[in-house]
Amino acid sequence: MIRGLLSVLFVLVAVAVSSSLAKPEKNIAKRGKRIPQTLSRGWGDQLIWAQTYEEALYWARAQNKPLMVIFHLEDCPHSASMKKAFAEDKDVQKVLDEDFIILNLVYETTDKHLSPDGQYVPRIIFVDPSMTVRADITGRYSNRMYAYEPSDIKLLLSNMQKAKKLLKTEL
Amino acid sequence: MIRGLLSVLFVLVAVAVSSSLAKPEKNIAKRGKRIPQTLSRGWGDQLIWAQTYEEALYWARAQNKPLMVIFHLEDCPHSASMKKAFAEDKDVQKVLDEDFIILNLVYETTDKHLSPDGQYVPRIIFVDPSMTVRADITGRYSNRMYAYEPSDIKLLLSNMQKAKKLLKTEL
Repeated sequence: MIRGLLSVLFVLVAVAVSSSLAKPEKNIAKRGKRIPQTLSRGWGDQLIWAQTYEEALYWARAQNKPLMVIFHLEDCPHSASMKKAFAEDKDVQKVLDEDFIILNLVYETTDKHLSPDGQYVPRIIFVDPSMTVRADITGRYSNRMYAYEPSDIKLLLSNMQKAKKLLKTEL
Repeated sequence: MIRGLLSVLFVLVAVAVSSSLAKPEKNIAKRGKRIPQTLSRGWGDQLIWAQTYEEALYWARAQNKPLMVIFHLEDCPHSASMKKAFAEDKDVQKVLDEDFIILNLVYETTDKHLSPDGQYVPRIIFVDPSMTVRADITGRYSNRMYAYEPSDIKLLLSNMQKAKKLLKTEL
């Protein structure tokens, strides 16, 4: 029997237990059937989403496209209002579909680079295909630099254009 | 600018590039709309799936339930036939719904404990809530110990019962 015990995961679990985490939802439709969970979680049903950060990084490198990572929670009203604005904005959706690898997560990863100023939701982080987290691409709030509100959609779109200007790869 | 560069991810990318990986599918329905990707990927639309291994481990510990991890590929015929049998078996689906945390992945994780005898698909690995990979719970093929075929559904169900007998936690 092999022990799949990683100290890093212990830390993760300890953090998770003490934080407000989205519980797996059991969406029950009217006829008693659950609505299947989607990878988009409502952030753009017509887009192609990566499932995990590792998968997303792989596709970013393979296709030489920037990666957008959205951290959110299903029961967070700020996440919900941002999600609505995000999913309804045709420009955002079009540029993402054509030029980005995308991932949305309701659970933090073990990579601390994805939380340059802490773990909060909603938070949008760009990663260059050279696997460099673009901590320089920020929103308008100095205390939560990677947070966006529905009124910030144009800023987000402008930040997406910044992220499309790829860093020179040093690899 | 922070560099989100992990050597372990380099290794992962190298492995991924050289392996036959499922490309993100652009399922286009008849009316030109894509069918939203589901977390179940057809292994049980009515079940509640974890998105990532870290999330799954968290829920396994929090709910003291064993975790089943299914590795598969969307364009692999063995995965497809196993998926069909799996999704249609009411006993399997019922026990999973009640007693298991479940995760299906089309991309390998960085945890080598999840590939005790190599990376292949389809492959089903159980993990105890004590975070111990149950390498002792195997299928019937000595060269691919964690592979199952549609005719092995009863064996899988029996293995699920084994996984439900939790190990004494040593934590």
